[in-house]
Amino acid sequence: MAQARLLADLRACVGPEHVLTGDDAVPYLTDWRKTVTGRAVAVVRPANRDEVAQVVRLCAAAGAPVVPQGGNTGQVAAATPDASASAVVLSLLRLNRVRAIDPDNDTVTVEAGCVLQTVQEAAREAGRLFPLSLGAEGSCTIGGNLATNAGGTQVLRYGNARELALGLEVVTPEGEIWDGLRGLRKDNTGYDLRDLYIGSEGTLGVITAAVLKLFPLPRAQRTALIATPGLSQALLLLQRARAGFGAELTAFEVMATPCLRDVTRAFAQQRLPFTEIDDDMWCVLLEVSDNEGEQHAQDRLEVVLSGALEAGEVSDVVVSVSESQSAAFWHLRESITLALAQADVCVKHDISLPASKIPDFVRETDRALATAFPGVRMRVFGHLGDGNLHYNLLPPRGASKADIQRLVHDRVHAAGGSISAEQGIGQHRVEDLERYKSDVELALMRRIKTALDPRGVMNPGKVLPMESKGDCP
Amino acid sequence: MAQARLLADLRACVGPEHVLTGDDAVPYLTDWRKTVTGRAVAVVRPANRDEVAQVVRLCAAAGAPVVPQGGNTGQVAAATPDASASAVVLSLLRLNRVRAIDPDNDTVTVEAGCVLQTVQEAAREAGRLFPLSLGAEGSCTIGGNLATNAGGTQVLRYGNARELALGLEVVTPEGEIWDGLRGLRKDNTGYDLRDLYIGSEGTLGVITAAVLKLFPLPRAQRTALIATPGLSQALLLLQRARAGFGAELTAFEVMATPCLRDVTRAFAQQRLPFTEIDDDMWCVLLEVSDNEGEQHAQDRLEVVLSGALEAGEVSDVVVSVSESQSAAFWHLRESITLALAQADVCVKHDISLPASKIPDFVRETDRALATAFPGVRMRVFGHLGDGNLHYNLLPPRGASKADIQRLVHDRVHAAGGSISAEQGIGQHRVEDLERYKSDVELALMRRIKTALDPRGVMNPGKVLPMESKGDCP
Repeated sequence: MAQARLLADLRACVGPEHVLTGDDAVPYLTDWRKTVTGRAVAVVRPANRDEVAQVVRLCAAAGAPVVPQGGNTGQVAAATPDASASAVVLSLLRLNRVRAIDPDNDTVTVEAGCVLQTVQEAAREAGRLFPLSLGAEGSCTIGGNLATNAGGTQVLRYGNARELALGLEVVTPEGEIWDGLRGLRKDNTGYDLRDLYIGSEGTLGVITAAVLKLFPLPRAQRTALIATPGLSQALLLLQRARAGFGAELTAFEVMATPCLRDVTRAFAQQRLPFTEIDDDMWCVLLEVSDNEGEQHAQDRLEVVLSGALEAGEVSDVVVSVSESQSAAFWHLRESITLALAQADVCVKHDISLPASKIPDFVRETDRALATAFPGVRMRVFGHLGDGNLHYNLLPPRGASKADIQRLVHDRVHAAGGSISAEQGIGQHRVEDLERYKSDVELALMRRIKTALDPRGVMNPGKVLPMESKGDCP
Repeated sequence: MAQARLLADLRACVGPEHVLTGDDAVPYLTDWRKTVTGRAVAVVRPANRDEVAQVVRLCAAAGAPVVPQGGNTGQVAAATPDASASAVVLSLLRLNRVRAIDPDNDTVTVEAGCVLQTVQEAAREAGRLFPLSLGAEGSCTIGGNLATNAGGTQVLRYGNARELALGLEVVTPEGEIWDGLRGLRKDNTGYDLRDLYIGSEGTLGVITAAVLKLFPLPRAQRTALIATPGLSQALLLLQRARAGFGAELTAFEVMATPCLRDVTRAFAQQRLPFTEIDDDMWCVLLEVSDNEGEQHAQDRLEVVLSGALEAGEVSDVVVSVSESQSAAFWHLRESITLALAQADVCVKHDISLPASKIPDFVRETDRALATAFPGVRMRVFGHLGDGNLHYNLLPPRGASKADIQRLVHDRVHAAGGSISAEQGIGQHRVEDLERYKSDVELALMRRIKTALDPRGVMNPGKVLPMESKGDCP
């Protein structure tokens, strides 16, 4: 009865064709990795922020939780409803306008449902760079990127999504609109609401638009694929590259040799440019973005890398001579995930550590895993420049995934690291959050949730557990 | 009675010599600009975070508000108690250890009472740069810098204090310790408490330590003093410099000619290096920090600035040939405030705007002021690269300071700007915050304050008005 009334109200608000139920709703109810499928009263697709606000008010009044969803490309099912069929999925895909671009202020104002690639293209058309870049950029939305504080391949230079946002527009759990769309580099007027909403995975409100930072387009980009004798040498190379390239160092990725062997085995057209490479070596994909030009980029790479060769940090190096070769190096890096997908089981960890601790962590954790789970095969790669590793492994038959993850995450925690560097908490890592966060930190988070969403309307059960259910209507 | 008991408890906690009353307390009770003098039960100087926590617990139990204070160099009296003599001033100056430095992770862990210059020096000794830099750096503390999200001269490249902090340690209003001292570039595990405490001016808790980002030391720094025909040309030059130098552009300051004339009049040893300069011109102080060397910095300056000369964005330019000449250029910039201090009255505004709007804003607001307050003389300078102007003026005799500020701030607000870019709210701008923030934003801030400090222990009357007094014990 109440649901029928809510459905009717939602249809009146956004138009019946934008309230999806039955088969039409199905694509919105399973997460991207197909780990869970939920149920919902409906999937609602409002057209603008006022409709978003009205939808949230209707849901709040009806006691229906709201699950915001962007491109549905997340890794932790933060945008998937639970099985109770009580929630409304609020899709932001129709809020897809680039509202304004201001090249002289180096800002662009976009709606939450803009696909990341669209934002990149709008910036480029204005002669500017929007640097956020990740695998899902053709499907993910900027609202989802902000709600999850997305990372990607350019964090080393430009920071996470958080550092790329200057202002937000947010619909609160009461359906009010906070207009914080300020395009300012400096603004010390009160508490930092912006960064509280960023990364909160739709549990405190709905991001409907944002003002984003733009940057000058680099004149030239060069990549080098580098073989290093081990992770310690890769870390030395990182320090050398930071000193030698400064902010022109825009990516520093590492890949363990077995990952690359998987790629060349899975995809016949992919080749490693090195003649000799053994299993202990690590490859580095290094990218520089130069504001002078091709020749300068080339010269600097030679200066810095010849120093690294002399110092023994580097065994072999190939510098791209063309954009297509650069693309091929990146393709190698990006194919690792696809190659790993061919394995029966792959246990993944998205961890970060102080960069200085990574070589010891990997050596010791590899050893602990080999002892506890004989036959385990490591497949580690990631963003060494950010201290972020995709510490993945192929377990022996019968090994418990939960036991493996516990071993890895306990060691990450002991080393002062994070058990979710890029991907967030969603519904998959709620228990981990409770295990690894201190009581003080958890209590602070709960107080914020209760203060900003006292009725528990927004995306319940994500980030924090459902315990505050008693407060819900 | 209750106060005598609290004093005895505080003495037992931190030692009697660190509980200051009477004359010993006087230096802590007046703000740096000498705008207000408060009264306090005592000034307490704990030695470490555990003592801070205990002091906060004692104060909370006794119903005594806590006013945290660092170097006491703020501009808005955020660290000064009110006149009621009910508060305890909590000085962080004895928490002054550099706890750890990790060059391979490019981080340093410092206590809140470390003087900013000490942090800079510790970084330099480890071969790294800590880039936060501002006039008060010999006296201000890093805890105060973080509590107020300090800006300074390098924001264009490195961001505000917020962007330089990776982790915090905070004592909550209940006297609990949140250990968020993480040295991670990526960590998406729950709400962003760090950025909530940063900039909250001691109203949500006491920052006791922080993990800060370090950067490679630049190989060379060059400055240029540039005369531009007007602010519009200065803005074009900014865009050219951003494209031409990329992240090597570390400062872009503007100064209206009358400011510079004041400096050369007030200080005989200061000279302008230009032969011809008229009152409509604006000078730019541009700094590049180069990771290759002196020659490269020089070459790049010539390339970029000769383009600007050809385009008519620049009338005259002098590039520093030595560190001492660079220092002289910076000294000219930094002397403006001192020269203005010789005027009988100077009405100051610390505003920010989208950079694209600054030329129109200045022209139109200058005109509006001249109409409303005939005889007003403008003295404008600031960080154009950050959209931040110190929009100062010398009013005609008898003009109301409040009326002038209202005119300026109303126009800033209408243009989407901030009425406090760097300096915060403290006690001086609480009414402005209420005037210019939306009801939605104010309500969100109040909810956060109430959630994290339900008894109103922390720095009451700062940032937000005292209205929640009813909740206090």
